[in-house]
Amino acid sequence: MSKGVTAKSEDYARWYTDVIIKARLADYGPVKGTMVIRPYGFSLWESVKDAFDCRFKETGHENAYFPLFIPKSFLSKEAEHVAGFAKECAVVTHHRLIADPDGEGLVVDPDSALDEEVIVRPTSETVIWAMYKKWIQSYRDLPILINQWANVVRWEMRTRLFLRTTEFLWQEGHTAHATAAEAEEEARKILEIYREVAEDELAIPVLTGLKTDAEKFAGAEHTYCIEAMMGDRRALQAGTSHNLSQNFAKAFDVTFQNEENQEQHVYATSWGVSTRLIGAIVMVHGDDKGLRLPPRIAPEQVVTVPIGKSEEEIGSVLDYLETPLKEMAERGIRCHVDDRAGVTPGFKFNEWEMKGVPLRLEVGSRDMKENSVTVVRRDTGEKMTLPKAELSKEAPRLLKEIQQSLYEQAKTFRNENTYSVESYDEFKSIIADTSGFVKCGWDGDPDTEAAIQEETKATIRCIPFEQEVDGLTCVYSGKPAKHEVIFGKAY
Amino acid sequence: MSKGVTAKSEDYARWYTDVIIKARLADYGPVKGTMVIRPYGFSLWESVKDAFDCRFKETGHENAYFPLFIPKSFLSKEAEHVAGFAKECAVVTHHRLIADPDGEGLVVDPDSALDEEVIVRPTSETVIWAMYKKWIQSYRDLPILINQWANVVRWEMRTRLFLRTTEFLWQEGHTAHATAAEAEEEARKILEIYREVAEDELAIPVLTGLKTDAEKFAGAEHTYCIEAMMGDRRALQAGTSHNLSQNFAKAFDVTFQNEENQEQHVYATSWGVSTRLIGAIVMVHGDDKGLRLPPRIAPEQVVTVPIGKSEEEIGSVLDYLETPLKEMAERGIRCHVDDRAGVTPGFKFNEWEMKGVPLRLEVGSRDMKENSVTVVRRDTGEKMTLPKAELSKEAPRLLKEIQQSLYEQAKTFRNENTYSVESYDEFKSIIADTSGFVKCGWDGDPDTEAAIQEETKATIRCIPFEQEVDGLTCVYSGKPAKHEVIFGKAY
Repeated sequence: MSKGVTAKSEDYARWYTDVIIKARLADYGPVKGTMVIRPYGFSLWESVKDAFDCRFKETGHENAYFPLFIPKSFLSKEAEHVAGFAKECAVVTHHRLIADPDGEGLVVDPDSALDEEVIVRPTSETVIWAMYKKWIQSYRDLPILINQWANVVRWEMRTRLFLRTTEFLWQEGHTAHATAAEAEEEARKILEIYREVAEDELAIPVLTGLKTDAEKFAGAEHTYCIEAMMGDRRALQAGTSHNLSQNFAKAFDVTFQNEENQEQHVYATSWGVSTRLIGAIVMVHGDDKGLRLPPRIAPEQVVTVPIGKSEEEIGSVLDYLETPLKEMAERGIRCHVDDRAGVTPGFKFNEWEMKGVPLRLEVGSRDMKENSVTVVRRDTGEKMTLPKAELSKEAPRLLKEIQQSLYEQAKTFRNENTYSVESYDEFKSIIADTSGFVKCGWDGDPDTEAAIQEETKATIRCIPFEQEVDGLTCVYSGKPAKHEVIFGKAY
Repeated sequence: MSKGVTAKSEDYARWYTDVIIKARLADYGPVKGTMVIRPYGFSLWESVKDAFDCRFKETGHENAYFPLFIPKSFLSKEAEHVAGFAKECAVVTHHRLIADPDGEGLVVDPDSALDEEVIVRPTSETVIWAMYKKWIQSYRDLPILINQWANVVRWEMRTRLFLRTTEFLWQEGHTAHATAAEAEEEARKILEIYREVAEDELAIPVLTGLKTDAEKFAGAEHTYCIEAMMGDRRALQAGTSHNLSQNFAKAFDVTFQNEENQEQHVYATSWGVSTRLIGAIVMVHGDDKGLRLPPRIAPEQVVTVPIGKSEEEIGSVLDYLETPLKEMAERGIRCHVDDRAGVTPGFKFNEWEMKGVPLRLEVGSRDMKENSVTVVRRDTGEKMTLPKAELSKEAPRLLKEIQQSLYEQAKTFRNENTYSVESYDEFKSIIADTSGFVKCGWDGDPDTEAAIQEETKATIRCIPFEQEVDGLTCVYSGKPAKHEVIFGKAY
């Protein structure tokens, strides 16, 4: 199974794609730039989705569903927004196909042209604020705390599985508030949920902070982000939360009557994470044998490979394991038994390593004689023998340890590849030679930011919340720094 | 709140729309024919979705996600399929907008025309079978039991909230099998899941059976269905399960090597239910006060309206109810407390009746004095007084009773409006005067079916599994009947 996986060190991009295809997370769709999420990948996405969804609901958010199609005219209402999205929109222009009068197959019926073309949503601010205009009259109608799980489309020319595809799945939250302070609190609250899920569930350490104006969402007042380092030391924007201030309320003329009977524009936030997080899980934790999944989100946490030459031998192994398997299931551990016939144990080991299952049980006649089980950890490869009676008690502890260990490994890797620099030469050599996060002073000038990007391809990934700017100078201009920032090459 | 709801008896179609809007299940989207599912409606859909999803998973199905966009050429590969869907397809022809060179706003960039137009999926058989061709080589790769929850688009000219909208949400299962018998078993197994969820969760009695060739899915060998009677005595197709035989496997040339090393085409099924079920819940159970939701799928099962003149009085009611509310929550009952200030109890009663919450608690100072609670059933309007200490034990029993009562009411209504007829005159007068289900013999001739539809607008909704055809004659031709069938006017 692991045959055909390029080594990480040899070609990171190919390794990434190989793992996704071999682990059956996803496949390429027939239309260029589209992707099929296969059952194993989708099950992983369901785990990730649930981790967010329950936290959104606990904090008072409700799910809803808004239309896929947006009138073309809506997109142009907010100036920055249109500039950000118009160049990559899928446009529906007709609503009927007919048999080709000149040959075989189908052609678009010219008589079915739409009066106004519709856009397949690249994001839903515009259609949602058109609805909020209908729903909001008074302060009593606020706040509105809505989220939706949906597909969106951005017509990308260069695509990559999970990271950049024409269509992707995501959640997009859209909230409406009576005051600027409430909107700001909401945007920060969501960022904290994003951080928590990334770190505690996906075992991905993230930096939290602000985007620069050049990197913020098209239409936002400001954008918060969680930013992670991938295994090739490049940065991935893993989630963003936008304070939209009154920008969309003004564009769509959404006002409310406040408690003092004054008419005011509504304040807003929007925020999203997407299936790109699956790509992050692959890149942060994967190795040359395939995926290594954090136990909390792994579709299967323990896989059992019974070893035996005949159906009877395999049957007796399964009998032998009946009690601990039952006990583990009762403790809520997701267990899978691979009792496929006609496939060697070695093949199965490779396959489940590729699929990143955290714990593997290998049990055969010797284990049965010794009343033990052989357990293999996917994170370290460590093989251990446990008394059978202890398995169901040990498994939760081991899973917790693996979760923690994957997080620590990723954090160590990130910290080892984060450099505080003072000179621009040093900056350039790190970005060019090893890549990684470069921490330095920035004068706050967009021209400085643009010049650095032009020369090095590195961008400001994040202005971290935690920073020390006193006495710092800009790495490029030498002027006093306005912020301490993190530069990196981004996906 | 119930102001502005048209009486059911006065105008059923307007009553239906009024209830949906007033109960905040949904609203009209900005593009003609599109719909916004509001949080209350979406929460109901989440309940319905979960009821299906857990049953699909229990029977070995896995979720996945296939692309929204389908190459135009795929649609024409299966002859009946293209005929069924080509006339209502949203077609994406371009991928970029630019500023209008002649004025304000945006226009489609003519330079962004796609080489091959893509279709927004009306259903996913074609894209899925293109993938199955890649994934299936041997009998070891079968069966494939995949489901997806997705949005689909059918460009409808006459639309209606939940029942017929340009875009709707659904699940579509797509399975691949080695034998015809397995595919047939699968199609029937799914139909049984559909029946079970409709009857046991949605409290909607359904007929199960076969569609005629005229009514079956475009591309299916045969289609099974669950068919329900709405409150206006019209029929609603509530779910369909198709045995596709080898039709799509042949169209996409999907073969496998069987255990005897022979190359064979794969057998298939597909099956779906959609947000149209929400419309069915409204129409089967609703009354002039609004929704009546079956407890098992109601987003909130018990709503508490504390009655008092001041915040203190309301606070003391909530203190008084603390224990039973906690106990009900512990029993898994979904409880909501409506402690909004500035809204009268009467307004709240109307609102929660409109929203169909099965049980309402009205508690004020008199109840507190008597150590009791006042409970109102939404299904019957019955008001009763219970000792406070018994509430948390009584609530589950009452909810169960309401679930059962809604089902029985709907079943009685359907049975009372189902007529066995022997003459075509009788048939015509029932369809024209009262509507309802008409049970009669049919000679099996599509021309007979077409003639009846032409003359009466009634169609064969279902050839029920349970039937007695001996000695029966066709209601139209007088020839010996091939089937006993159910006619009705359909949504």
